[in-house]
Amino acid sequence: MSGEQELGITESKAHNPGDWYAEVVRKAGLADYAPMGGFIVTRPRGYALWEGLQSHLDGWFKETGVQNAYFPLFIPESYLEREKDIVEGFDPEVAWVTHGGYDELEERLAVRPTSESIITPFMAQWIRSHRDLPMRLNQWCSVVRWEATDTKPFFRTKEFLWQEGHTAHRDGEEAWEETIRRLDQYERLYTDVLAIPALRGKKPDHDKFPGADTTTTLEALMPDGKSVQSCTSHYLGTSFAEAYDVTYADEDEEEQLAHTTSWGLSWRALGALIMTHSDDQGLVLPPTIAPEQVVIVPIWQEDTREAVLEYCGDLRDELDGAGVRVHLDDRDERNPGFKFNEWELKGVPLRIEVGPNEVEDGEVTLVHRPDGESEAADRSDLVEAVEGALDTVYAKLYAAAEENLESNVREADSRNEILGTIGRHGGYVKTGWCGEEACEAEIKEQIAAEIVMVPMDEDEPPIHDTCGVCGEGAETTAYFAKSY
Amino acid sequence: MSGEQELGITESKAHNPGDWYAEVVRKAGLADYAPMGGFIVTRPRGYALWEGLQSHLDGWFKETGVQNAYFPLFIPESYLEREKDIVEGFDPEVAWVTHGGYDELEERLAVRPTSESIITPFMAQWIRSHRDLPMRLNQWCSVVRWEATDTKPFFRTKEFLWQEGHTAHRDGEEAWEETIRRLDQYERLYTDVLAIPALRGKKPDHDKFPGADTTTTLEALMPDGKSVQSCTSHYLGTSFAEAYDVTYADEDEEEQLAHTTSWGLSWRALGALIMTHSDDQGLVLPPTIAPEQVVIVPIWQEDTREAVLEYCGDLRDELDGAGVRVHLDDRDERNPGFKFNEWELKGVPLRIEVGPNEVEDGEVTLVHRPDGESEAADRSDLVEAVEGALDTVYAKLYAAAEENLESNVREADSRNEILGTIGRHGGYVKTGWCGEEACEAEIKEQIAAEIVMVPMDEDEPPIHDTCGVCGEGAETTAYFAKSY
Repeated sequence: MSGEQELGITESKAHNPGDWYAEVVRKAGLADYAPMGGFIVTRPRGYALWEGLQSHLDGWFKETGVQNAYFPLFIPESYLEREKDIVEGFDPEVAWVTHGGYDELEERLAVRPTSESIITPFMAQWIRSHRDLPMRLNQWCSVVRWEATDTKPFFRTKEFLWQEGHTAHRDGEEAWEETIRRLDQYERLYTDVLAIPALRGKKPDHDKFPGADTTTTLEALMPDGKSVQSCTSHYLGTSFAEAYDVTYADEDEEEQLAHTTSWGLSWRALGALIMTHSDDQGLVLPPTIAPEQVVIVPIWQEDTREAVLEYCGDLRDELDGAGVRVHLDDRDERNPGFKFNEWELKGVPLRIEVGPNEVEDGEVTLVHRPDGESEAADRSDLVEAVEGALDTVYAKLYAAAEENLESNVREADSRNEILGTIGRHGGYVKTGWCGEEACEAEIKEQIAAEIVMVPMDEDEPPIHDTCGVCGEGAETTAYFAKSY
Repeated sequence: MSGEQELGITESKAHNPGDWYAEVVRKAGLADYAPMGGFIVTRPRGYALWEGLQSHLDGWFKETGVQNAYFPLFIPESYLEREKDIVEGFDPEVAWVTHGGYDELEERLAVRPTSESIITPFMAQWIRSHRDLPMRLNQWCSVVRWEATDTKPFFRTKEFLWQEGHTAHRDGEEAWEETIRRLDQYERLYTDVLAIPALRGKKPDHDKFPGADTTTTLEALMPDGKSVQSCTSHYLGTSFAEAYDVTYADEDEEEQLAHTTSWGLSWRALGALIMTHSDDQGLVLPPTIAPEQVVIVPIWQEDTREAVLEYCGDLRDELDGAGVRVHLDDRDERNPGFKFNEWELKGVPLRIEVGPNEVEDGEVTLVHRPDGESEAADRSDLVEAVEGALDTVYAKLYAAAEENLESNVREADSRNEILGTIGRHGGYVKTGWCGEEACEAEIKEQIAAEIVMVPMDEDEPPIHDTCGVCGEGAETTAYFAKSY
């Protein structure tokens, strides 16, 4: 750390969001670029966010019947090939292991791009009767997809961390319920932990997961007007069960095909978190997931040092005892202004400032991270005041993100209106759509916007009778947006 | 599950420990063999053991200043080559990625066999001054070592799960303390969680980690007389710091080389756990790590069904409320005998049997897994009785393992005595050793026993004045054993 200059964010979120994002990630100590293009090193502060997210999601999975497991990192090429959609979908982006030690392998091994093709055949072995269903497995791991794009930490990397859930069920209804159950849990994560509201829908057929019947998604709107696909939950129908022979004996001893699902959430959720809330002072985190929720910064002169530090130590102990994640920054070699900047950069949601006045008056001063709002509280109400302030901080972050989303879903009724509206405002444009990929391609070519989702409910009438692009009859509503 | 036959263990631990181990792993639902030789699939019950182990060790790491991070799965070949010992040590067993999608890569990427060569260069970037030290990083991940040997789940697999810690320090004393701190924590895991006592020592120089100054180890004795290297903690001196330029400015602004350590524990710990305690009925687990600590099995006729099940439900709720991991097996389609066998196979430490008599008398019957000992307890003392029984079960397991270890460390004073003692009894043979690898090689060639450790303290005089193999002057004591 070479001082103030290194600490400050120099790029602007409003004017140069790409460079600003990269600078926040690096200077807040979340991640660095690895020597190989497309890879990053996740530093402790970034990894702590992942652990925070995991602890919530993993708990909800386990409460709802999911068991963690671990499948091999490598998948034999012949296994990938058993599901033709999978191999077509992933072949261009598979990293291949060809040598073990000094020897060439007889069969190439794919570094897993996703694990349906190794997990499903094992489900087929383990499932015998209806009593073995539903079977719900999940693994936390990394996957590799060799995409040739500019690296953007947590958004676009060749290796990324995620969880992938894989389940098998007796019929389509149960499997569909599972698909939605996991989408609900992802939505809970975004709403209650990451302070990010999202739209709920499904991918158009041409953009589904390879082999899926239906791919459901949450789409979150970033402040720069682009959409992030925040998770996916796939109803796979019987296509994987057929390819890998997942059958079971029902109550009448008749052999039946299982219906399967898969669902995943990656560290892209961290990218959305960082990009949504942070500002030109650095990282902003909701208290739900911040490694430190509160930092205490003592402000003293030589003659008040002892009293101030003792008071601060008591505050720390009391908050710690109440289960608040608190850090007392009692470094001698840094002044309070430096500390304010550093903890703002690092995204601590609440700062407690304590000087001789606070000690004398038996008070504390609480400063909210997102907006610098400060409030005084009685020392005797410490825990209550801090918990209240943390709730307020969360509510502010959520409200700002919600406002951004709500004011950026617009309608358009013609090609020019779609292009113009997205061009001017970003965000989502709803329009009627005939269902042809060609109409999406036309928009994509001109402004790199695509259909990020269509409504989940197929019976919902389209917003307009005709397709906003070609003018033919509309089959559904489509949400166009530029997208990460 | 095709019935009783599938449930039973058919191999004998005493007579055929290899096949018995494989059968326990498979039938208790811990792991299956993957389609590629050398790889396994870790099933939920096996993975739950790993999560149990993680929750203990990760907590201790964090309490002592370790931060989790995540480094890339792949390491460029040129990075490996910067530490010549590393590349010589691991080259024969590296899995190489040569293609991404349809393109050949310009530089081959190693699937990490261990991560010193990618973590240390980043430490070099992050460490500027003595204030950045000590730096302590850890990651939970999988690594790949392409060894051509028979697959043995959790013991010998090409991919395995582990944690690897990497730290940097201002001097050798602090780095050595760190090396021992982690060895202590591993010992705590074996002693207090896995119920396995172990010997503590260091590897002979010719068997150290490539590039290490000192490799410390815990050696645990399996019931078949072979030793398991249960973890390693390496003091790396300045060799990695030199290779990757890890320097810092000290208080006088002088540039100094850091001293580094690394330490790892793999799922081999699960292999040792399974092999140490299990028996011809199946898996035996200490309550500390068992996914279910208690299973309640109701025993009823049609007219007592309701009363027995209600009583059992209350027991379950009370134990659950007290934080005991409890499962009520209320399946209709299985009889109590089947359930007894199944939960014994799966390693639940304590069974509560409840029939109409127990309900009438307000009692419970507790049956210990390792030895079938049963005790009656008053319903009103439920939690206390269960907690006491779980402690007793743990103590029994530990005592048996300790007895095995203590009675199998023997002395020998000549080549023939070494060969004969290990041949007859297995276990460890202590003898004087001149320090020459050739003397180990001679024993290894004849009975595949090697020097698994020497005493940590270099000042400790050797047990005999002369080398047990060549008769020259002894430099230290050596522990010979066959080893996994």
